[in-house]
Amino acid sequence: MDKKADIALIGLAVMGQNLILNMNDHGFVVCAFNRTVEKVDHFLANEAKGTKIIGAKSLEDMVSKLKKPRKVMMLVKAGAAVDAFIDKLVPLLEAGDIIIDGGNSEYTDSIRRAKSLEAKNLLFVGSGVSGGEEGARYGPSLMPGGSPKAWPHIKPIFQGIAAKSDGEPCCDWVGEDGAGHYVKMVHNGIEYGDMQLICEACHIMKDVVGMNNDEISQVLTEWNKGELDSFLIEITADIMKFRDTDGLHLVDKIKDAAGQKGTGKWTAISALDQGMPLTLIGESVFARCLSSLKDERVTASKQLKGPTQGVVKIDDKKKFIEDLRQALYASKIISYAQGFMLMRGAAKAYNWDLNYGGIALMWRGGCIIRSAFLGEIKKAFAKNPKLENLLLDDFFKVAIHKCQDGWRRVLSAVVLQGIPTPCLSSALAFYDGYRSERVPANIIQAQRDYFGAHTYELLSEPGKHVHTNWTGRGGQVSSSSYNA
Amino acid sequence: MDKKADIALIGLAVMGQNLILNMNDHGFVVCAFNRTVEKVDHFLANEAKGTKIIGAKSLEDMVSKLKKPRKVMMLVKAGAAVDAFIDKLVPLLEAGDIIIDGGNSEYTDSIRRAKSLEAKNLLFVGSGVSGGEEGARYGPSLMPGGSPKAWPHIKPIFQGIAAKSDGEPCCDWVGEDGAGHYVKMVHNGIEYGDMQLICEACHIMKDVVGMNNDEISQVLTEWNKGELDSFLIEITADIMKFRDTDGLHLVDKIKDAAGQKGTGKWTAISALDQGMPLTLIGESVFARCLSSLKDERVTASKQLKGPTQGVVKIDDKKKFIEDLRQALYASKIISYAQGFMLMRGAAKAYNWDLNYGGIALMWRGGCIIRSAFLGEIKKAFAKNPKLENLLLDDFFKVAIHKCQDGWRRVLSAVVLQGIPTPCLSSALAFYDGYRSERVPANIIQAQRDYFGAHTYELLSEPGKHVHTNWTGRGGQVSSSSYNA
Repeated sequence: MDKKADIALIGLAVMGQNLILNMNDHGFVVCAFNRTVEKVDHFLANEAKGTKIIGAKSLEDMVSKLKKPRKVMMLVKAGAAVDAFIDKLVPLLEAGDIIIDGGNSEYTDSIRRAKSLEAKNLLFVGSGVSGGEEGARYGPSLMPGGSPKAWPHIKPIFQGIAAKSDGEPCCDWVGEDGAGHYVKMVHNGIEYGDMQLICEACHIMKDVVGMNNDEISQVLTEWNKGELDSFLIEITADIMKFRDTDGLHLVDKIKDAAGQKGTGKWTAISALDQGMPLTLIGESVFARCLSSLKDERVTASKQLKGPTQGVVKIDDKKKFIEDLRQALYASKIISYAQGFMLMRGAAKAYNWDLNYGGIALMWRGGCIIRSAFLGEIKKAFAKNPKLENLLLDDFFKVAIHKCQDGWRRVLSAVVLQGIPTPCLSSALAFYDGYRSERVPANIIQAQRDYFGAHTYELLSEPGKHVHTNWTGRGGQVSSSSYNA
Repeated sequence: MDKKADIALIGLAVMGQNLILNMNDHGFVVCAFNRTVEKVDHFLANEAKGTKIIGAKSLEDMVSKLKKPRKVMMLVKAGAAVDAFIDKLVPLLEAGDIIIDGGNSEYTDSIRRAKSLEAKNLLFVGSGVSGGEEGARYGPSLMPGGSPKAWPHIKPIFQGIAAKSDGEPCCDWVGEDGAGHYVKMVHNGIEYGDMQLICEACHIMKDVVGMNNDEISQVLTEWNKGELDSFLIEITADIMKFRDTDGLHLVDKIKDAAGQKGTGKWTAISALDQGMPLTLIGESVFARCLSSLKDERVTASKQLKGPTQGVVKIDDKKKFIEDLRQALYASKIISYAQGFMLMRGAAKAYNWDLNYGGIALMWRGGCIIRSAFLGEIKKAFAKNPKLENLLLDDFFKVAIHKCQDGWRRVLSAVVLQGIPTPCLSSALAFYDGYRSERVPANIIQAQRDYFGAHTYELLSEPGKHVHTNWTGRGGQVSSSSYNA
């Protein structure tokens, strides 16, 4: 061994392999390891052939080949595999060495691991990695958080390999313990929402406007030149026109049942825990759940009827498609506004000092939700780092005001025709609720006091909780220690 | 002491007091206890004066006053207080004694407590109790689950004090360990949904139709005579017309910020964990979250504009209100269909043999969601105990077909006017999704395969997972060990 490696990477699935090749491109020497050691040899003999990448035959071998402080990055399946590797690594490392988890771990696990490793004088980094295989290979978005002392040591590698947006790396320090994985989780939740919104728009083009896949692809390509410019719109344009070897559209042959057991679900659960109304992402996760009940849907489709009013007539197709574009854009603004609301809530709950503009920059390039739109979010937080809600930024306020009439026209039409638009619809309900000084929750409070003596607050006497004997029958005892 | 008590009850807030008085009415001798012992004396000297109810000065005193096997029921705040009382009770009890938790405990805690107490040869019952203070006093709905050996001992008391529907008690054994609290949790989730749906209907009557509170109350009273006949519609009719001492409507003075930190949230989280699309209850929980952001809404209301198209013109008010009734009824059908889907999923996951018709009967009377409607659900499961989905029962299928056009007309109008209807809208999106043989999730699967090599399933080759190199650039390695 002449030269020691800058970093080790464990886990040679596609994301791991590509991150190693990316690090190699940027001049870092990487030591590759995999539980099934034959994968290391195969990788060195194929994808890594002719590079400076080295391999290890065991964890002991790997650790011996690293510069100090040692940096060991894992890209293995979230959950037990991460803990198992950490347990094996700990006895091999020494004070100040750094373990980096680049998988899609739950932020609660990262909080636990940071505490546990710091107690052993090791440093922990839980980093979001986004961008899929392409991103990992040529520039991902990286969202590292954990032990702050680790950051100076990994910064050159992380910012070196990350995507660049206007010359700035799409990677910065997010915050303590689980902050990196939390922000990645919200990123993925937003990704769920963006994907479902695009599906709903395609569905409307197909079944309301009557367009074919190639026409839909063309519209998406057009949209990608404007406000909606984004990776997901771009690839969906590709997907809609992609033809199988038999000349038919591949997308029509793919089973309409989407998996969902990961970060989208965690985002929705965290929103429920924080009490933040993350309606759009919630609906997007449930839309995947419903899609996966394929057999039930097939049965139901034969028994449950659609509207009898018949098909909506589109007088001006071009105008309707522009309305649809506005519906999609407005809904996207709502989804990101909700996502930033959630992060604000979590920052308070977990005592993280999140840099919202920095997060927008990390998502601006490299990752799955990268878009021109995120550049506008970055600007909004640059103008006002204390911005309470994206919807109150002038740019987004004007944008949503401009879009709302078209958004409403589209939804007004599709409900008559029976096209499901859970995310476009929940986004509008949120907008109309959020801009309401009064919502009818006073009735809920009255109901809860009526049947459960839960008390309510008077508008005129904030902080004072009152119980009314609505029926003249119930008692005057309030239910302070029994909460429904 | 001449006579020993049949059961002890710990916790003298309104629910506990009323359950004791109810048990006393049915001939059972109850021993009352409370952590703050003065409450016992106060209760005996006031509400319990002239009854056979006895009190205890300590847990030891309480236990000594009970017939064997001892039955100790707690109605204390869910969480740490329950465990604290269990820890204190265990050394005082002997094999075969029964601890009953009647609070709103998390079902996961009940699963844990049942296991832990059974290991100590004690029996545990986690029972849902619904009906608020009135129900507790005159006949609640009771949903007991836990150690099956406990049921014969508590059955006379539980079925004695429970509400009756057509002569049958609204109480039956639900299932093992946490099943009782799980079913209660779903009950409460459905309650959240029902309450939010009623709020949305009232909001539409007020702001779209332009009705005042008394007119809204009259409509609700009318609705309560038909398919919507239910406790919540009945009390909301009362609430809308209730006048404060100054002659003004009390409901208008109540702060529109609803609490939510309990069972509704858990229901939504369990749905996410089970992968069941419980969209309506999810939206109802988030609607409470949004309501509680009152200060933000007030700020936003001054900056975010509504539609410019102006107010929807209602040509035929009577017809519109009938459409609204149909929208409410159809949405309610969806919400219950989703709730039963969730219970079916949980029964599978936790190995419970749930009796769905029995659950409908338990909810038919006594509890907050009691309604004529639940009688129809009971009938549906009586006709077909293996009914896969409520929507596929003939009664509900016909009902929703009859309602759907009105439902669509209402939503088509309110989105133009800017009234938020998160639950009415998400219910329709679910209906339109559930009855779709194909949904656009094939596009999601294509996107996931495009950017993350996640593979997809072909419609023509079920079970086979395929990866396509969409761009000609990516590799052929699929991401089997790295799940986004």
